[in-house]
Amino acid sequence: MEEIIAERMQGIPRSFIREILKVSLDPAIISFAGGLPNAAFFPVREIQNATEKVFEKYGASVLQYSKSEGDEQLRSLIAARYLEKKGLHISPENIIITNGSQQGIDLLGKVLLNGGDNVLIEEPGYLGAIQSLSLFKINFIPVPLDNDGLDVATLAEVCGRSRAKMLYTVPNFQNPSGISYTDSNKERIAALAKEHRFVVLEDDPYSELRFAGEPGKAFCHILPEQTVLLGSFSKIVAPGFRLGWIASPPWLHEKLLIAKQAADLHTSSFTQKIMAEFLSDNNLDEHIAKIIEAYGNQCRAMQSALSRHFPKSITFTKPEGGMFLWGRLPEGMDSMELFQAAVRERVVFVPGKPFYTGNGLTSTFRFSFSCVDIETIEEGVKRMARALEPFEKRYGIN
Amino acid sequence: MEEIIAERMQGIPRSFIREILKVSLDPAIISFAGGLPNAAFFPVREIQNATEKVFEKYGASVLQYSKSEGDEQLRSLIAARYLEKKGLHISPENIIITNGSQQGIDLLGKVLLNGGDNVLIEEPGYLGAIQSLSLFKINFIPVPLDNDGLDVATLAEVCGRSRAKMLYTVPNFQNPSGISYTDSNKERIAALAKEHRFVVLEDDPYSELRFAGEPGKAFCHILPEQTVLLGSFSKIVAPGFRLGWIASPPWLHEKLLIAKQAADLHTSSFTQKIMAEFLSDNNLDEHIAKIIEAYGNQCRAMQSALSRHFPKSITFTKPEGGMFLWGRLPEGMDSMELFQAAVRERVVFVPGKPFYTGNGLTSTFRFSFSCVDIETIEEGVKRMARALEPFEKRYGIN
Repeated sequence: MEEIIAERMQGIPRSFIREILKVSLDPAIISFAGGLPNAAFFPVREIQNATEKVFEKYGASVLQYSKSEGDEQLRSLIAARYLEKKGLHISPENIIITNGSQQGIDLLGKVLLNGGDNVLIEEPGYLGAIQSLSLFKINFIPVPLDNDGLDVATLAEVCGRSRAKMLYTVPNFQNPSGISYTDSNKERIAALAKEHRFVVLEDDPYSELRFAGEPGKAFCHILPEQTVLLGSFSKIVAPGFRLGWIASPPWLHEKLLIAKQAADLHTSSFTQKIMAEFLSDNNLDEHIAKIIEAYGNQCRAMQSALSRHFPKSITFTKPEGGMFLWGRLPEGMDSMELFQAAVRERVVFVPGKPFYTGNGLTSTFRFSFSCVDIETIEEGVKRMARALEPFEKRYGIN
Repeated sequence: MEEIIAERMQGIPRSFIREILKVSLDPAIISFAGGLPNAAFFPVREIQNATEKVFEKYGASVLQYSKSEGDEQLRSLIAARYLEKKGLHISPENIIITNGSQQGIDLLGKVLLNGGDNVLIEEPGYLGAIQSLSLFKINFIPVPLDNDGLDVATLAEVCGRSRAKMLYTVPNFQNPSGISYTDSNKERIAALAKEHRFVVLEDDPYSELRFAGEPGKAFCHILPEQTVLLGSFSKIVAPGFRLGWIASPPWLHEKLLIAKQAADLHTSSFTQKIMAEFLSDNNLDEHIAKIIEAYGNQCRAMQSALSRHFPKSITFTKPEGGMFLWGRLPEGMDSMELFQAAVRERVVFVPGKPFYTGNGLTSTFRFSFSCVDIETIEEGVKRMARALEPFEKRYGIN
């Protein structure tokens, strides 16, 4: 019967991450691979209290079907936080609650993309977005990232001839690279978006996890009428709820709502009410401050260990927040080859390959510092340095 | 910017149900319109206990990311219940937990359907399926329902020339008609599915709600290698959890899993564990028995009121379970016109139109008996009878 499988399912990249996770299950292995937030900071007791209140206040009604848009209280709390934290005026009416921000990518794909359309994407890019958007049978047009954001010269060149409908971007503490777009970079991108009439999909799950530097402007502020903003509670509260949101300009909202309804009617009314109750009763800033402190310490510990144990010619990005560092091996060296050597040293990371839309060798790789304590980071970096040794002569690493 | 909206979003039927729900908010209105399960039977206390146990047993780990397939314990419990209740051998490995069975429709659509493909669908059919599948830009081939199931002669004729990839069916207490397919009807459909190589999408959220008659065989039993079975906790426990599942033959499972991962990574690990705990600690049969008793009483009360207050020429199906009755007005009379008259009498129902894939007048309509008590049923049917009066002469209703 396989002959009746849809065309869109052909050539979907297998999830290499899932393969790595299997290796990571061995407790002898140190993992810099996972992209998970640190469960030590999930506010379990506070969520338990919020859950009890939800049963008390709402009883059976919270277990009934509800609106496709999502819970009104939760949408208002999200809008209020955007105003307070970022000065963004987002109406609760333009927010739809989704099953994590991942679902927002799927919904926007449904609303905008025909087969054969062109989609701009930062390279390296979030592999969940690559996988999700691949199902629409679109052509990816990768635009390289540098330390300030997108390579705007390349973007200007490709969007002149591509008539792309959309740019996928994670402008803060990007996954996988950890870099953030500067304001001037964002402004130049927004000008191109306006000129060439493409939507900016601003996927922003990490921006509240800033442990250094100053926040910039959101695309949603610079170009509100063409920006779709995705947010998530996964990194700042807990991912197991699968609660995210999509905030869109009015011309897209009704279409996204139809797509949401068709996809699964609505997101769990029960988990939405728990989150609303949790947010009402607790100081989210104080909670996030604890996460930031730990992630900042772990990032600095990893940078320090790398500076002491790694050859200088292997360079890393310098994130001001988030969960990831991005490394670069000498040109021509395959990070997949290093991965195999690292497994033998009982340490794993994610090779760059799955973050690129094309094929071919990649010399880049991602380290995550969110779930490893400082001693483990030190030991893991030492193991990585040992895994590198056999390659040093061959690739002139020093 | 509207010019960049994808083709699939054009011509999606607006949800008339949502419009009706707005009218129903007026407490003076009696509603036979809703398709909701009765919240009076949600096992709130038991779910609250299960939730407390989940916090105790799992703590932070239940709030972390988890597998796209879903919780292993929950998948095992679902498989064990199929074996116990229906003698169906379904491996937990072939089950994926979804956000309600609605998401299962979307996932199977992604895996099977190219634009322009033909999809067989019972007529009248579940409007959520019509909406969801419409987004794949397929051609619906409606096959009429009668009291035994599909009109097999028509099915044989259309599937000979259509090369359809899939048949969408709700074989037990169908939404909207309330009818169930007989075993011999299912066997003849399965033989055609085998001959013409199409997948049977067996959407089965209601089969445990049987208040009369004897259960038949599942398509999944008759033709396991070509049947995809959708199940849900929405009608037997509570819909607010958004927990359903898709059980598929192995040749489809891996593809569905990729589609699920791309759609939203996974369904809430928190709600899955609560449901698993609830199922382990409670007798689901005893719980369902209470629902069945009420729905059976309400169905019989509605049938009795209709026989006393309605003209005999208006006929109704005779469901053995589920939540719906399906009525038929004289040929040529538009149930939408009756709806307007009914609103004036302060009673609402769902006109047949949204359950058909084509346009044109429909003389059919759906009454739901799940959420109305016996006195309200009596009063609502009287109001409906009054709403009918002005039409009786014109359409020869007697």
